[in-house]
Parts: sequence; C-alpha cells; structure tokens
Amino acid sequence: MNAVILLATLKKSTEVSHTEGLCQLLIEEFKKQSVESEILRLIDFHIPPGVVSDVGEGDEWPKILDKMLKSDIVIFATPIWWSNQSSLMQRVVERLDELNEEIVATGKSEFLNKVAGMVITGAEDGAQHIIGNLGNFLAWNGFSLPPAPSLSYLGSYERGEEDSVETVADKFRKMKNTAGMARTMAKNIVHLAKVLQKNPFPAQEAGAQYLR
Amino acid sequence: MNAVILLATLKKSTEVSHTEGLCQLLIEEFKKQSVESEILRLIDFHIPPGVVSDVGEGDEWPKILDKMLKSDIVIFATPIWWSNQSSLMQRVVERLDELNEEIVATGKSEFLNKVAGMVITGAEDGAQHIIGNLGNFLAWNGFSLPPAPSLSYLGSYERGEEDSVETVADKFRKMKNTAGMARTMAKNIVHLAKVLQKNPFPAQEAGAQYLR
Amino acid sequence: MNAVILLATLKKSTEVSHTEGLCQLLIEEFKKQSVESEILRLIDFHIPPGVVSDVGEGDEWPKILDKMLKSDIVIFATPIWWSNQSSLMQRVVERLDELNEEIVATGKSEFLNKVAGMVITGAEDGAQHIIGNLGNFLAWNGFSLPPAPSLSYLGSYERGEEDSVETVADKFRKMKNTAGMARTMAKNIVHLAKVLQKNPFPAQEAGAQYLR
Amino acid sequence: MNAVILLATLKKSTEVSHTEGLCQLLIEEFKKQSVESEILRLIDFHIPPGVVSDVGEGDEWPKILDKMLKSDIVIFATPIWWSNQSSLMQRVVERLDELNEEIVATGKSEFLNKVAGMVITGAEDGAQHIIGNLGNFLAWNGFSLPPAPSLSYLGSYERGEEDSVETVADKFRKMKNTAGMARTMAKNIVHLAKVLQKNPFPAQEAGAQYLR
Repeated sequence: MNAVILLATLKKSTEVSHTEGLCQLLIEEFKKQSVESEILRLIDFHIPPGVVSDVGEGDEWPKILDKMLKSDIVIFATPIWWSNQSSLMQRVVERLDELNEEIVATGKSEFLNKVAGMVITGAEDGAQHIIGNLGNFLAWNGFSLPPAPSLSYLGSYERGEEDSVETVADKFRKMKNTAGMARTMAKNIVHLAKVLQKNPFPAQEAGAQYLR
Repeated sequence: MNAVILLATLKKSTEVSHTEGLCQLLIEEFKKQSVESEILRLIDFHIPPGVVSDVGEGDEWPKILDKMLKSDIVIFATPIWWSNQSSLMQRVVERLDELNEEIVATGKSEFLNKVAGMVITGAEDGAQHIIGNLGNFLAWNGFSLPPAPSLSYLGSYERGEEDSVETVADKFRKMKNTAGMARTMAKNIVHLAKVLQKNPFPAQEAGAQYLR
Repeated sequence: MNAVILLATLKKSTEVSHTEGLCQLLIEEFKKQSVESEILRLIDFHIPPGVVSDVGEGDEWPKILDKMLKSDIVIFATPIWWSNQSSLMQRVVERLDELNEEIVATGKSEFLNKVAGMVITGAEDGAQHIIGNLGNFLAWNGFSLPPAPSLSYLGSYERGEEDSVETVADKFRKMKNTAGMARTMAKNIVHLAKVLQKNPFPAQEAGAQYLR
Repeated sequence: MNAVILLATLKKSTEVSHTEGLCQLLIEEFKKQSVESEILRLIDFHIPPGVVSDVGEGDEWPKILDKMLKSDIVIFATPIWWSNQSSLMQRVVERLDELNEEIVATGKSEFLNKVAGMVITGAEDGAQHIIGNLGNFLAWNGFSLPPAPSLSYLGSYERGEEDSVETVADKFRKMKNTAGMARTMAKNIVHLAKVLQKNPFPAQEAGAQYLR
C-alpha cells in the first residue's frame, strides 16, 4: 500500500515547513503499517490556475494527479491562513474539477475506495473549519473518511531553534497527544483503505453526485 | 441493520417539514437495503441546554442518545438557517460532549464502527458548509463517512401546494438528481456500515483524539 | 448610548461563565466611553424554537428583541462548541427571521445604523469561523461592523481556581493582548455607532437584500 | 473617491468571467455615486506564493497592493470553488500577511477607514460562507463593513449564449433582486467610506489586534 501527501506549505524547499514536520509523524506511523509515503511539495511544481486536468504549456499538475490516482491513500497537508487552507491547497481543489464533472456525468471516480486524511498546522485557529471544508470536498469526490481523519497542531514556533524539519518533527514526537493522534489517524486510515480494497463500494450512478 | 434519523426541523409535528420530506427518500432507499429507519423529531422532545448526557429533571435527551447508541447508522437531518445547522442540531452536538470527553480520556467510543450521513434543506445556500461543519464533528466522535454522505435540496417551496410530507417527498422523488443522490447515499452508507461491522477499527487509544 | 449583550453561554446563572468573564472587560471599556451595558443571559429566558418574533405561550424572546431594538450597540457573546456558536446563539439567529423577511420585503430594518460586535471563548479552535459566520448574518440584517469587531479567548481553564466571574475577568485583564483587544473593540464600536447616528445610511430598498 | 476591484476569476482575459459580469453592475452604481472603479484581474498578474509584500524577482503583487492602498474602497470579487474563495483570492489573503504583522506590532493599518465589499458567483452554494470567511479577514485587517456588503449570484449559465461580459452583465441587470443588491451595496459602501473619511477611527494600539 502507498500514500501520497500533497504538502501545501507556502515555504520553499530551502525553508523549514512545520506542516512537513508534522507529516513526518504520519509517515513514520504509515511505515509501521507497511505503507510507503511520498511527499509532493506543491510549491516546487508549476501548477497554473485552471479547472481542467491539464492546461498545457509546462503544467506539472498531471504528474501530481497521476500519483494521486496510483495511491491508496491521499493526505492533504496545509497550513492555516485566516481560517482557510492555503492557496496551493485550494488550487488542488480547483484542478480536480474536471474529474468532478466526470463523476457527475458518469458516476465513476478513480478516487472511489481510496481513503483521505488531513494534516493541518497554524499559529492561529481554524483547523476544525478546514477539516470540515476539505472533508466535504473529499467525500463528494469519492474518498472515504475514517474516524480521527486528521492530525493538527496549533501554536507558535520558536523560529530560531527549529532550524530543520527533523527538529520540528522531534518537538511534535514529544507531544503525547500529537504523537497519539498520528498513531490513531494512521491506523484508522490504513484499516479503512485495506477494508475498502477487499470490499469496494458498488458502482455509482451518473447525476447522483450533484450537490443541489 | 437499523438507522436513526435526528430531524432538527424547527417545524412542529403539526407542520410540514421539507427536511422530513427529503428524509423519506432516504428511508425508502434504506428499506430496499433491508435497513429499518426511525425518525426522531427533536422539537417533540424536551432537550435542555447542557454538555452532559443527562441533565436530570425531565430531560428527554437520554432517550434519543440511547437510540443513537443502538443504531448502526445515524443520520443528522437539518434545515439551513444562515449557512448553519439549526439550533436543535447544534444542541445535539453540545449534548454529546460528555461522550466526547470520554473518547479523549479513554479512546473508547460507542460510535466507533457506526456510519453517519446528513440530510440538508434550505431556501438559501450553505449546504456544503454544514456538511463540512457536521462532518468534522462526526469524524472526531467515532463515525465514518462514505463518499456521497449527504442528501440536500436548496430552493424555495410552493407553500400552498405542499400541504403534506407526502407531497413534498413526491416532489423530491420526481427530481432525478435528488432521487439519485438518495440512492447513492443509502447504498454507500449501508455498504460501509456492513463492512465495518465485519471489520471493526482497532481499539483507539486515550488522549489521541484531542484536536489540538 | 447603550449596549445590550446577548450571552449565549450554556452555563446557568449559578455557574461561572468564562464568556461572561470576558464580556466584563468589554463592559468596562464601554463604560469609559459613557456607554451603559446590560447582559441578557439567554439560558435564563424561555426562548422556544421558531422563526417568528413571538411564538406566544410564555415566549420570552419578545423581551430580548425589544432590548435589542432599543440599543445602539448589540454584542453577540458565545462559547465555541465544535467550531460553531452555541445552540442558544443559533436560536437568536432563527428567531430574528421574521425581521429579516421584513427587510427583504420592505428594505427597512430597525437594526440599520446600529453596530454589532462579538465575544467568543473556547477550549478549542473556531473563533474566526464564528466571527465570519455571525458577521455574515449581522451584515445582512442591517448591522455595521468596524475593524476589530470581536474579542476572543481560546484556551483551557483552571476550573478549581476560577470560582467567580470576577476571578475569570481578572485573569483576562492581566492578559495584555486580551485587554488591548477589549479596548480597541470598544473604541471602534462606539466610534462607528456615534458616527452612524449622525450620518445614517440612506433608506434601503425592498428586495435588494435577497442573498442570491 | 475611487474603488479597486480584485477579480479572482480563474478565467483568463480571453474568456468570459461571470464574476466580472456581476462586477459591472457594481461599477455602474459606483459611477452614479461619482466613484471611479478599476478592475485588477489577478490571473493576469504574476503573484507568487508568499507571506511578504514583495517576494522579489518579477513579483507583481506590489503593484496591486499599491492600488489597494491608494483606494478608498476595495472589492474582493471571487467565484466559488467547493464553498471557498478561489486560490487567487486566497493568495491575496496570504500576501497581505506582512501588513497584518505590522498591524499586530504597531496597531497601524493603512486600510483603516477604508471600506470593503465582496462580489461572489457560483454554480453551487457557498456564498454566505465566503462572505463570512472574507469578512472576518477584512474586519481584522482594518476594513469596515456596512450592511449589505456583498453582491452574489448562484446559478448555472447558458454557456453558449453568454459570449461576452456585456451579455452576462445584461442578464444580471434584468434580475430585479440582483440589480437592487448592486444599488444597495454601492450606496452603503460609498456612504460609509465618505463618513469614515470625515470621521476617522481613533489611532489603534499595538498588540490589540491579536486574535487569540
């Protein structure tokens, strides 16, 4: 089994992302369950605005989408900016629109029987709001959500001292609740993914997915 | 298998509730899957404000909670008031707090391996917002959510003509997408509930459920 | 000038409400600006579910509404329960529906030229989400919102030691940012209320208030 | 007086944007009040991810920010994608972070005494959710919000026939409520902007803006 993590931090690869640090805990727990993970740091890809799966001309979204389609588990990892997911995560939502139109038209979704999860960090509040917002999107695009489907940390950071992803991850590992959330989330997600692989949902019908 | 529907309409039993009309479609689909449903119209019960499972003195919440605990599937049905679930549905959220504290303290939840769904109606917009808001609550209280976990209708009503729940349900039955959503939602919820009964989640640990 | 504070705590008058403790700071700052405040603790009133201004039979909402209509400033104070305002605050939203229908039909609102503010407390996150949710409601019901229109505190409480509203308020007074927020919020709200009294909005037209 | 409209459509200049069509009604109403408007179509600018006012290397955000700072009124116009503002609008929120840090540190905001408004279109629901979400951000960044601060349209479009912004605007002009909303919104925003220019808020203090 494998998981792909879409990391929507606004920090470039040369900077330390606390969201990435939190993802490390999840990756370790996935590994204990024999699930291999790959992080795709969205800011490193050229993803133009749009609502189709390929806008042409150097668009790197198709590469990301391909990895999503080949994964059993997809994790949406985002920092909080004013109670909202980052612009890079919102772009993911928009770029998946062509597939959503396909679900509406045919009922078919390649995400059906996949399981989703969320990783959220912020200096301010808003994690629950984002879990809800993304959760609605995911559930209506074929994904299933187990109990405890997210891992979050809200709080400020000691910028000087947290000079590497490893330092950040270490801080989170020492937080009992945070480490426990990572364990629970990983167990539940992997359990549900395995169970759905053996017991897939019945075929979905066209038109039925329309929200209104 | 059985389902309980918490109906949070503000309309008394003597009035026609469009949310109840929409629930009828879901009940019919559940029946086709051999799932019996019961609607609990919250406004008919005395549910005082509070954050414990029994506030004493004529509190009728324990009766409702008991039915939730005995059901395989729990449906949260609410009208939209200013982009939010009704006060009666929000009271349900609050009255479940004692059980949530128990989840945090012990990891155990009697809702684990149960599946939740939502039914939403409104003259204005806000269904997606409520699906998210309730979905976050449900996922952190032990419930699982399948794809297409909700049934919604937004639009105004011909007050004069819609003089019974049956008339309202009929209107919805004739709407191809709405009827299709009810079918898909019922199938997915029942499928997931059956699958989880045979393949329950591993025991959850204490403390791990804490959101921050 | 006067302000009315709708306090939507789930705690009865015999219990200590942290939301009330936070309101004390705002009341003190209002007093410095010669604005008298009155707290209406919603749980002490009998407010049945409904969408009209008077549902009859012992309904005490009309008393509260009357005070709102006679105040220059209305403060909506609520605890957070799962990223949402309390059921008592949501009930206020619902009970104001008849007046909203009047706004839609005639354009006229007795809340026009009044200023609103919010006070929010919680053990978990969600203040920004509630500010937004309530803010949308308020702006579409005639109220104006100045910058920094809310006062919030998120965090757990030392239950044993915080045995009176005064102890709670004291704790908040010692928090520099919280005390500063109360000052800023009170100044901005009173400023805007005074300015709008002298410079009222032009008459509003019918139908224009419809959100869709 | 002047207004700047940040247009966050995902459609390029060569395509017809319904959000732009709706903005036309607001521009016309502003004109009647002697307010000149300029639309900045965000997709036409290079705005890299980031949380500072200038990320260097071809960053065109500083040009947009400059226009915002020189305007009396700022309108945030966005389509709805899964109950959320577009990624281009969320990027605006993120790029304003350096100024927000300045507000927290000094209390000073160049947006103080400016008035904000919102224009929202979508095929699905979510306008109220976005009004709230953006409204919270705006109010905490110095802007004031009058009653009826937004103009929205939810519904599908006759793609074939709506082949120009003018055709779209025409459709909206013929909708009585939509045209009335544009009139009311423009009147209220201009009124409040004039009133605040003559009666500016008192100086704000440092630290007081911190949300928690």
